[in-house]
Amino acid sequence: MVSSYFKSLLLDLGINKERIEILEGKGGIVEDEFEGIRYLRFKDSVANLRRGTVLFDFHNIILGFPHIKRVVQLENGVKRVFKRKPFYVEEKVDGYNVRVAQIEGRVFAFTRGGFICPFTTERIEDFVNMEFFKDYPNLVLCGEMAGPESPYLVEGPPYVKEDIKFFLFDIQEKRTGKSLPVKERVKIAEEYGIPSVEIFGIYDISKINDLRELIENLREQRREGIVMKSFDMKRIIKYVTPYANINDIRIGARVFFELPHGYFMQRIKRLGFYLSEKKIRDAEFEKYATALGKALLEPFVESIWDVSGGEEIAEVFTVRVKHIETAYKMVSHFERLGLKIHIEEIEEMPNDYWRISFKRVYPEATREILELWNGHAFVD
Amino acid sequence: MVSSYFKSLLLDLGINKERIEILEGKGGIVEDEFEGIRYLRFKDSVANLRRGTVLFDFHNIILGFPHIKRVVQLENGVKRVFKRKPFYVEEKVDGYNVRVAQIEGRVFAFTRGGFICPFTTERIEDFVNMEFFKDYPNLVLCGEMAGPESPYLVEGPPYVKEDIKFFLFDIQEKRTGKSLPVKERVKIAEEYGIPSVEIFGIYDISKINDLRELIENLREQRREGIVMKSFDMKRIIKYVTPYANINDIRIGARVFFELPHGYFMQRIKRLGFYLSEKKIRDAEFEKYATALGKALLEPFVESIWDVSGGEEIAEVFTVRVKHIETAYKMVSHFERLGLKIHIEEIEEMPNDYWRISFKRVYPEATREILELWNGHAFVD
Repeated sequence: MVSSYFKSLLLDLGINKERIEILEGKGGIVEDEFEGIRYLRFKDSVANLRRGTVLFDFHNIILGFPHIKRVVQLENGVKRVFKRKPFYVEEKVDGYNVRVAQIEGRVFAFTRGGFICPFTTERIEDFVNMEFFKDYPNLVLCGEMAGPESPYLVEGPPYVKEDIKFFLFDIQEKRTGKSLPVKERVKIAEEYGIPSVEIFGIYDISKINDLRELIENLREQRREGIVMKSFDMKRIIKYVTPYANINDIRIGARVFFELPHGYFMQRIKRLGFYLSEKKIRDAEFEKYATALGKALLEPFVESIWDVSGGEEIAEVFTVRVKHIETAYKMVSHFERLGLKIHIEEIEEMPNDYWRISFKRVYPEATREILELWNGHAFVD
Repeated sequence: MVSSYFKSLLLDLGINKERIEILEGKGGIVEDEFEGIRYLRFKDSVANLRRGTVLFDFHNIILGFPHIKRVVQLENGVKRVFKRKPFYVEEKVDGYNVRVAQIEGRVFAFTRGGFICPFTTERIEDFVNMEFFKDYPNLVLCGEMAGPESPYLVEGPPYVKEDIKFFLFDIQEKRTGKSLPVKERVKIAEEYGIPSVEIFGIYDISKINDLRELIENLREQRREGIVMKSFDMKRIIKYVTPYANINDIRIGARVFFELPHGYFMQRIKRLGFYLSEKKIRDAEFEKYATALGKALLEPFVESIWDVSGGEEIAEVFTVRVKHIETAYKMVSHFERLGLKIHIEEIEEMPNDYWRISFKRVYPEATREILELWNGHAFVD
């Protein structure tokens, strides 16, 4: 149920009554609560309020983070999107997207879907200088949380050796969702010491070979890829390394039946375009073919063996928190999302932190493997 | 439009008026014509009339060929389906399914979808002794047409060196769709000299190791797999070799964007279960991984290169016919199905046959590759 407070707020924002009722009816807007603060979460886009938007009051509207377009042919993608104009190239960090904003004097971190994340909200002050929000209460920090100890992902980038880190990549205005130009963002980040994604430099199409070399370096360093941005942030595209495509497949194949077929096929597609653009042949081609085949088959076959031996398909996530309650709030959050998750281990750390492991079990993927292993005959 | 003749026939068959109208409205039944004979084709199942059923009159009802269930774990599949009972093991031939029946004194061949196939109808007398239909006008021959020169598939089984062949695997009654017991089918096939799929013998769960060895032999011989049948044909399951799974992926990857993701993922799944059941590891595992990776990437990358060089994605099919008109009828048939196909080459053969090549172009798959190659930025 959406309360009359939010309904009248939506009317004030120019969304008509019928629209609001339809949205509520199909669950496109959902009222939520976090530690006594109520907010409206947008599961669908409405007018200029993008999917993932979070609404508190007339001024405090955190727009959904827009989906960045992808290119799979680097040279032609750059040509087509930026023509001969220069653009910034930044690292695409392999983590989860958060928006961080101050509401009524408190700082919250929002997930892509528009939930307040209890973990990130607790930990964000470890990474971001809170002075920023005093000076700019109207701005939203958008960044990636990445590292080996993350509540959402089993792996992080190779250079985060422990725990998790925040990497700023965008600053947006509340209500409009407008991004600051790259230069302004960088200036503010420096001023407040906010950790940011690595900026590899300014490129244009004439430097395509340098850009290719950068991709090869990132691939060798097992990094995910790049995001290319016009100075005014109006044109943004991403490109990922073949390493990331194969590694994602490897991680996904462990929970084979949990993921849509497109998850795997999209990454195979990207890999195909990489090999085509780089004109990779013979032994090097075979190296990629083997890596892809292993990434698809090894974790999947291991899962089948596990299940045939009576185990359940599961993944373990570890996080560091200051308060154990935060971990329990994460569990409630996951349970509300329908996940089967429980706390596996709680360990006290020397610095007053707690190290907590969650186990996420995949009952459907387990059941599907078990049925097939047991000789179930099916029509496909 | 379905004519009143067929509508009253459906009423006589016990299907009520509302049902018939709904079916007609959503295209679940379609009236078709072939060389002056009208028939009703079922795109949906209705009562006991399976999808693919073809209806001429009250007696001449050719039931849709049922989908055979698949197992991906051989030993447990056999245990579960046949318990300790014996079953026939026959070859699963890699071709296209046809049902052959005599209607008003003429013999027609029907595709899985319930179309009369002009090609198979013309050629069937080259393979099947027509005396059979004089003696058994009430029976339907179900078999596989397979070979390197087929209008539907680019490859055939290794032992058909040229042209195409018919392989009987089932004989069903008109109207009921009931299968003859295996023994009776074999007897009739022998009597009339109707070529049949290879029968590898009678197995039961105690001979699981022999069955496994059979699969390995078929794999080495690049054959598709087996169909296991209880004597009375009431329980039937299929199992394919890892060779077939990888080869299908290789053929499909050439037209990557034309096929649903499931086409590839289902075969990867089957391969995963094969490797698990056989406990394949280390170097042999790597051999499969490389074969899978190459099957996915090589033809796909080749397609990207072709398209980037200005070519269209296409496949060429060759058939041998007695009358050139048959080839044109095939083209019309494909065009009605919405395919972009044209005759590429017509060659006279010494034995009064014509050898005709069709080219099937895939405009959508070509366009998709071209767009991505040209640097199109997209949200996925």
